[in-house]
Amino acid sequence: MRTRPLKVALLGCGVVGSEVARIMTTHADDLTARIGAPVELAGVAVRRPSKVRAGIDPALITTDATALLKRGDIDVAIEVIGGIEPARTLITTAFEQGISVVSANKALLAQDGAALHAAAESAGLDLYYEAAVAGAIPLIRPLRESLAGDKINRVMGIVNGTTNFILDKMDSTGAGYQEALDEATALGYAEADPTADVEGYDAAAKAAILAGIAFHTRVRLDDVHREGMTEVSAADFASAKRMGCTIKLLAICERAADGGSVTARVHPAMIPLTHPLASVREAYNAVFVEAEAAGRLMFYGPGAGGSPTASAVLGDLVAVCRNKLDRATGPGESAYTQLPVSPMGEVVTRYHISLDVADKPGVLAQVATVFAEHGVSIDTVRQQGRPETGGEASLVVVTHRAPDAALSGTVEALRKLDTVAGVASIMRVEGE
Amino acid sequence: MRTRPLKVALLGCGVVGSEVARIMTTHADDLTARIGAPVELAGVAVRRPSKVRAGIDPALITTDATALLKRGDIDVAIEVIGGIEPARTLITTAFEQGISVVSANKALLAQDGAALHAAAESAGLDLYYEAAVAGAIPLIRPLRESLAGDKINRVMGIVNGTTNFILDKMDSTGAGYQEALDEATALGYAEADPTADVEGYDAAAKAAILAGIAFHTRVRLDDVHREGMTEVSAADFASAKRMGCTIKLLAICERAADGGSVTARVHPAMIPLTHPLASVREAYNAVFVEAEAAGRLMFYGPGAGGSPTASAVLGDLVAVCRNKLDRATGPGESAYTQLPVSPMGEVVTRYHISLDVADKPGVLAQVATVFAEHGVSIDTVRQQGRPETGGEASLVVVTHRAPDAALSGTVEALRKLDTVAGVASIMRVEGE
Repeated sequence: MRTRPLKVALLGCGVVGSEVARIMTTHADDLTARIGAPVELAGVAVRRPSKVRAGIDPALITTDATALLKRGDIDVAIEVIGGIEPARTLITTAFEQGISVVSANKALLAQDGAALHAAAESAGLDLYYEAAVAGAIPLIRPLRESLAGDKINRVMGIVNGTTNFILDKMDSTGAGYQEALDEATALGYAEADPTADVEGYDAAAKAAILAGIAFHTRVRLDDVHREGMTEVSAADFASAKRMGCTIKLLAICERAADGGSVTARVHPAMIPLTHPLASVREAYNAVFVEAEAAGRLMFYGPGAGGSPTASAVLGDLVAVCRNKLDRATGPGESAYTQLPVSPMGEVVTRYHISLDVADKPGVLAQVATVFAEHGVSIDTVRQQGRPETGGEASLVVVTHRAPDAALSGTVEALRKLDTVAGVASIMRVEGE
Repeated sequence: MRTRPLKVALLGCGVVGSEVARIMTTHADDLTARIGAPVELAGVAVRRPSKVRAGIDPALITTDATALLKRGDIDVAIEVIGGIEPARTLITTAFEQGISVVSANKALLAQDGAALHAAAESAGLDLYYEAAVAGAIPLIRPLRESLAGDKINRVMGIVNGTTNFILDKMDSTGAGYQEALDEATALGYAEADPTADVEGYDAAAKAAILAGIAFHTRVRLDDVHREGMTEVSAADFASAKRMGCTIKLLAICERAADGGSVTARVHPAMIPLTHPLASVREAYNAVFVEAEAAGRLMFYGPGAGGSPTASAVLGDLVAVCRNKLDRATGPGESAYTQLPVSPMGEVVTRYHISLDVADKPGVLAQVATVFAEHGVSIDTVRQQGRPETGGEASLVVVTHRAPDAALSGTVEALRKLDTVAGVASIMRVEGE
């Protein structure tokens, strides 16, 4: 056992950082035993040094993160600031100083992962970021290491707890979107500005990271097709229930059937109640993985929060410290397949389309013709008169699998039909 | 990229071994890219050399596993023979020859894990065995590495697919044990002699391995309390349903409330339908983990079968090969806590007890007195007259949490009451 401690710089001391610092103190003996050397919190870089931080020696606090990294004795930096800058510059500085990095920064990894990995690799250092996707759920290590001998064909997950909380409320209580969002905000599950969550930006960053790891290729944030869930209505849930489904905001990364390309997307979708993801409640996350040899796997747990995220950060810290002692590095970026990322139009999926139509003979024939002209095969149609609207009816069409471009072309053509008063909702159907 | 291949000896070529060999061939380029060097199947040791093995060069086949390990150029051995001998001697020989080992052998690891780990460590070699527990489900790496910065308090899982298939059938069809077992046998889910599965020996070996890793201590197979599931009846499932529960054969590893000891056990138990493990169907496995910081996690997937197990073996192979190239080793045995393993009597749990009693006044008072005398608090009692048996009634008692010794003492005393004709069933209630 080495007695000279490994020195850690903590960059950021908010909800996650303060929990990392706390556990490093309270569980110091366990960390020492598991790493094979003591690990010491050598400095904590913060924006507001005056804030009282229980359990952290005030002498460790600094506002100069760069100076902390450059003082010459730091072995590992933990970046829990979030956002692009100053996190990116600090991580780059760390690598220049021979410091390995543990990060929880999904936005930065999704945007600049390739450059950061390259910087780590050329410096012979580690860049670990288990906490960046799905909080405490071990996901990056299983995908990158446990399944390293397998071929992953699909990763489909609930990777945003806020939106799952809202959709779960809508499902279980019949509430509308705004009402469920208000409850999520009141309970602290949604931020005052929920845009990043409800518009799918947060999930899209995670999808980019997961797709890159799963398919050993580079997937940038811009490659991810993104649709938010603010339009999901109580009526959509009612339709979903009639189909034996529920609605989840999913991040879906898929290898094309011919293996020559991949896709990554985030959007609300109907999934069957029998699918393991359907029973993921409240703010929990879960990621479903389909691999050629392993089959269907699922990883479930809390996707956010100070303690769960700190657990993931500390797991990485132990690994990076062990690598330091071994003078080795863990697996870096693996992007050797260089598979192109196809646009959303090439994704093959199913649609559930709800149309408001004139309640007269021949409408179904007209609608069916539009589907046929676009090469989209219809699975089921449910037609329902709605006398209260005076001559209008609703038509719910569920398609067979078809390219997304053919499906959206169909919808565009349907909108132009005189007999179609409106397209009430369009939702993809996944997980069957 | 190194061009000289890493050489692999495959020991055993049954269902798992042949799938390992197949994937090593068909996915050779992927493995090369992920490892950073080509990997070559250098020899395959089998018992029956005459058997035709599609896709394996007959020149690689040998019956002399020891000679294969001693030929001097093997880097990694994959042991998929199973059982204690000759697997143990061969793994020991591998370490003597400077060969790292990937094994899928739960029985051997549960019995001799400490000695094998010590042999690997003193030789500076790796011993990996992700495939030994829950097949393809990444579990050992997440517990050992992802949660290395956390404190695991409980691991509770369905780690035997055969028994889960049988219990799921009984639950969904109302079938009795024998009928469900017959179906499992017919479909190939159960072996001709199902003892290892249905009596819980297989699950107990996995529980020993999981407990050791989760609590950083040594847990031997003998430390695991084991009860099979052959006595579970259709009536038990009916009782479970009335409580909003189902019945699963669970492996449960727990840290005592005071943190000073651990327990490991395998037995059938009622769990609430709302628990994530309740919805694990057919032959799937799932393991639920409770950690101090991470919270509640679950890992789900196929627990057996050639391809899933091969996936886990190959993930380990990639890791061990990468370590070889780095001249490093992965995390070895971590048993620094040296926590004692407490006997079953000290486990704190709840009981569901079904009694056949005389249908006359005062019986409930007598029964309740016995519980009170043993310090076991009753949660609910359901009393039901059964005229068809002539003067007998059934009494279903669900207790609050109490030490298992107090519960079994209670049952022993109940059996001695004149008014108790018999104890129809006793089952623990978990996961609440």
